[in-house]
Amino acid sequence: MSSISIIGTGNMARTIGARAVAGGNTVEVMGRDHDKAADLAKALGGGATTGEWGAVPAGDIVIVALLADNVVPVVAHYGDALAGKVIIDISNPFNATADGLTHREVTSIAQEAAKAAPASASVVKGFNTIFRHVLEQGRPDVFIAGDDAQAKAIVEAFITSLGLRPMDAGGLEMAHWLEGAGVLTMGLARHGVGGWNFALGVTELPA
Amino acid sequence: MSSISIIGTGNMARTIGARAVAGGNTVEVMGRDHDKAADLAKALGGGATTGEWGAVPAGDIVIVALLADNVVPVVAHYGDALAGKVIIDISNPFNATADGLTHREVTSIAQEAAKAAPASASVVKGFNTIFRHVLEQGRPDVFIAGDDAQAKAIVEAFITSLGLRPMDAGGLEMAHWLEGAGVLTMGLARHGVGGWNFALGVTELPA
Repeated sequence: MSSISIIGTGNMARTIGARAVAGGNTVEVMGRDHDKAADLAKALGGGATTGEWGAVPAGDIVIVALLADNVVPVVAHYGDALAGKVIIDISNPFNATADGLTHREVTSIAQEAAKAAPASASVVKGFNTIFRHVLEQGRPDVFIAGDDAQAKAIVEAFITSLGLRPMDAGGLEMAHWLEGAGVLTMGLARHGVGGWNFALGVTELPA
Repeated sequence: MSSISIIGTGNMARTIGARAVAGGNTVEVMGRDHDKAADLAKALGGGATTGEWGAVPAGDIVIVALLADNVVPVVAHYGDALAGKVIIDISNPFNATADGLTHREVTSIAQEAAKAAPASASVVKGFNTIFRHVLEQGRPDVFIAGDDAQAKAIVEAFITSLGLRPMDAGGLEMAHWLEGAGVLTMGLARHGVGGWNFALGVTELPA
């Protein structure tokens, strides 16, 4: 089982935190608003603790569960506190109409977060192709991307502890296309696919 | 059932053609090399015919089954011969290492083909997220994107005739992210997912 810290106290923090506790992982919650973080930790149960905003996270894995615009600034704010950590970026930098990304160039929040993080930290993109309510109720596939094989193995073990299938898409440059897969998922949902109750996944050929 | 013309005589033309014949559709093959097109039409059976390169296609749906670099020039070459047609672009404009697209800007072969096609034609992106051998042997989901609802309905009926599920991702601007989903599919395959015998698909929550 893994030791994880979640930066953020919103719906996605709550959903991932609940699954993490159910999967037997150790969970810490860090919020800019300490009371909100403490409330979420209490709601999660399972011995979840509350950390101090900006302090060294207790977890080996740090899940940044914030709106896309806040991810890079908060990673920069934490700075050396993230040394040696595996950072998971789950964000979707959708444009205002959610049919494209805020960056027009070929980059991603994960790649920009990696630039802002200490060199000893590793950033992995993941979970962004899954609607929160689907993660809460279902068994969606979890696509990941990252440059550090050891970090990805740690994230894969965590995903497996949640009862989900990790799907390695490649290096961190693939985070751009995972963010694009988030846009695609929105497009499908808006055009009648699966009544919003679906996720992109891998369909294997029958053996 | 639909009436389709396939521009191209390669592996993807053969695979889509075979499924189209099996699905009871009328098929015409058009190749720059007329003999190759005639050979493919004969191999497909089911009354498949051979068309003249650059002439008005017999099919209401025209599937351009060419390498990505050739799609726009060939659509431009056909020009007014494509008036009123529903054009399906199935291409993947991968870069040399197949971990990104040849265009760095947010566009797609489908969008560029639409600019080159007559105003009365409609371009739909589709089939590009599916490996040829998966399309041959399996029941992959088929993601599509296009601006014309009537054209998409025609393509959806064709896809359904193949025994496959059409999945509408939205307007033609979504073709960029479908091309990105092609890159993602390559990345997953290269990193051990599904032994290359898979396709991206939609996994619905249990009701």
